[in-house]
Amino acid sequence: MRKCFFDHVATNPLHPEVLNAMMPYFKEEFGNPLSVYDLGTRARDAVEKARSEVASLINAKPSTIIFTSSGTEANNFALKGIALARQNQGRHLIVSKVEHHSVLNTARFLEKNGFVVTYLPVDKYGFVDPDIVKKSITKETILISVAFANSEIGTIEPIKEIANIAKERNIVFHTDAVAAVGNIPVDVKELSVDLLSMAAHQFYGPKGVGALYVREGLRIVPLIYGGIQEGGRRAGTENVPAIVGMGKAAELTKIELNKRMEHCKKLRDRIIESMLKIPNVYLTGHFEKRLPHHASFVVEFIEGEAMLLLASMKGIYAASGSACTSKTLKISPTLLALGISPALAQGSIVFSVGIDNSDEDVDYFISEFPEVINKLREMSPFTKGWDNATQTEKCYTGQQIFPKKGD
Amino acid sequence: MRKCFFDHVATNPLHPEVLNAMMPYFKEEFGNPLSVYDLGTRARDAVEKARSEVASLINAKPSTIIFTSSGTEANNFALKGIALARQNQGRHLIVSKVEHHSVLNTARFLEKNGFVVTYLPVDKYGFVDPDIVKKSITKETILISVAFANSEIGTIEPIKEIANIAKERNIVFHTDAVAAVGNIPVDVKELSVDLLSMAAHQFYGPKGVGALYVREGLRIVPLIYGGIQEGGRRAGTENVPAIVGMGKAAELTKIELNKRMEHCKKLRDRIIESMLKIPNVYLTGHFEKRLPHHASFVVEFIEGEAMLLLASMKGIYAASGSACTSKTLKISPTLLALGISPALAQGSIVFSVGIDNSDEDVDYFISEFPEVINKLREMSPFTKGWDNATQTEKCYTGQQIFPKKGD
Repeated sequence: MRKCFFDHVATNPLHPEVLNAMMPYFKEEFGNPLSVYDLGTRARDAVEKARSEVASLINAKPSTIIFTSSGTEANNFALKGIALARQNQGRHLIVSKVEHHSVLNTARFLEKNGFVVTYLPVDKYGFVDPDIVKKSITKETILISVAFANSEIGTIEPIKEIANIAKERNIVFHTDAVAAVGNIPVDVKELSVDLLSMAAHQFYGPKGVGALYVREGLRIVPLIYGGIQEGGRRAGTENVPAIVGMGKAAELTKIELNKRMEHCKKLRDRIIESMLKIPNVYLTGHFEKRLPHHASFVVEFIEGEAMLLLASMKGIYAASGSACTSKTLKISPTLLALGISPALAQGSIVFSVGIDNSDEDVDYFISEFPEVINKLREMSPFTKGWDNATQTEKCYTGQQIFPKKGD
Repeated sequence: MRKCFFDHVATNPLHPEVLNAMMPYFKEEFGNPLSVYDLGTRARDAVEKARSEVASLINAKPSTIIFTSSGTEANNFALKGIALARQNQGRHLIVSKVEHHSVLNTARFLEKNGFVVTYLPVDKYGFVDPDIVKKSITKETILISVAFANSEIGTIEPIKEIANIAKERNIVFHTDAVAAVGNIPVDVKELSVDLLSMAAHQFYGPKGVGALYVREGLRIVPLIYGGIQEGGRRAGTENVPAIVGMGKAAELTKIELNKRMEHCKKLRDRIIESMLKIPNVYLTGHFEKRLPHHASFVVEFIEGEAMLLLASMKGIYAASGSACTSKTLKISPTLLALGISPALAQGSIVFSVGIDNSDEDVDYFISEFPEVINKLREMSPFTKGWDNATQTEKCYTGQQIFPKKGD
């Protein structure tokens, strides 16, 4: 059976060249970068080379990159670290309602500990409105955090506009760019963001390593205290092989990004086209301003979880929302924020393609996936309800809220 | 030239079987453990298998193991997590003066944020006195943290006694066992500790992964918020290959521990014997109650850093203190806590052997290392001062504070 891995937002296979770059550091080059002898020095040099490569991918200086163990850690570090560093200036934070759980749950933690958080609404595409950002700012606002791109609906936010609003008012701006870095161009200087989170396994690097970009001169309180690693800002023996892998992955991504985007977009567009031919299937997010490898839908009358299982039996791997919460069986807050009803949100499915996918994968998908939907709809009590509904009743299903091409 | 890696407290080479166990998770088994399809399920099963193996090494239930990115993260998590969970019961913490920086610096962070910390003194061997622990407890005490074993001086603390003092008073007891787990038997049930930190690269597992044992039923506030990984207590996509590696390393360690201890102790004892034949060289820590792979000294008149560099040119790799602070050029707080003067503490050197070392390594060491000391002493102005000193003056060098065999 063919295997189509269409879940690149959950994780990516490791690029073979990345693994090759990592291997010596699992073998003879096992030194601790803080050791003074040659074995340590070479490990340290490897970490610094990786830092330069990661920095280069987002057009930053190497000294602004702090390696972490994940994008999630980077988000926790950014929010808590700025909240603690600036609490004497104010205790108000602004985040969007469609942030990843690592931002939302950290914001909730801060709320419990004396901070006030505004959760920005989004429109039906998932866009944050810069005007609403402006209006949400108070004298107490110290931090605004809006994700670069959303992993559930693919929407790319107007980061530059929001970053400028923050900059003009001397408020720190953080963007969770975990879903963006490696999939679209990201340039911290052009965008003038203060903090930016990323994760290596989103661009064919290893799991267990991420980074936080911290603008030069910006003070941040560490999340993890201890030794003097990462300039005293993030302690713990460096995960040398993973950091080397992240560097190599960044280097390859920088070279190949345009080619990758083009490749993915072609496959992605075919998936969208085929899915929208099926009745009562809607695209979530925006047709144009979305991640080039990302296709997300709501399929009426059936549940995402059931689609995933049936699809996986055909070798098609997809997601139904954020992987980090897939087991909670909770309705996605992102979809609810778009105005999608809880019942419809249950039918969410996300296909995300990668450099390991081919046209043949999509051919296979097009020939096999509609059957998954048909089979489940045949069994669903909701399908019958729909078939028997009057035209007026049908108007209330909420389908009007979904985006249309050319919007 | 022969290579003698005698710096196993800084890090360990990866066991080849551990790397073999990790490899599939860098290749075809790249799934995200939270994905519902088979690729995800297999990754999840691999993580849970590793959890059982790590738990088994310390005689714990699998559900009590939370994977982290390092021992340092585990220490931060333990201290901050209990401080936040229990702050309404009291705001007093007790730690020893000879803790790792990841405990000391986290304690200092908590001091700046409304907590009061007592730093326990130690005797000349580095032992914490359980009576002093008792006397330091107040009505406000919520947490006691004492390291299981010290990586700079090898001293093994009376953990069971201290844990019992805490238990009787309903105070949470944490032990940083990063230097202990894998080198000596550690049994959380027998010791009745509440929290215990460990790091895989200390027992031939990979860098970038550690764990915190949290006693069943003990509430702890997460350090890293986000998805539902690790039972909602530590978010972020699981570092599957590293976790699998930690599991394999734990499994091997459990089987081989006695053999490893015996092997290391034999080599270690030869190093101690040879070093103490050199005049004005003193063992730090205790002769008996020390890690079996650990030999630490103060060499008078010369500096540790210089010894390390000269030794590394002969292929002998050692440490001068904690790797995590080696570049700060600060005097070790651990050595100062033993009553060793700053001048003497400069001459600190630590040799830590491992399963990859042989008798031939020690033969080489014995034939080569004394020359390192001789060469440096010839260049040192302090040596002349000593040679010319009167007997009375010599009594003030502080050599009396060093341990003697049979103490």
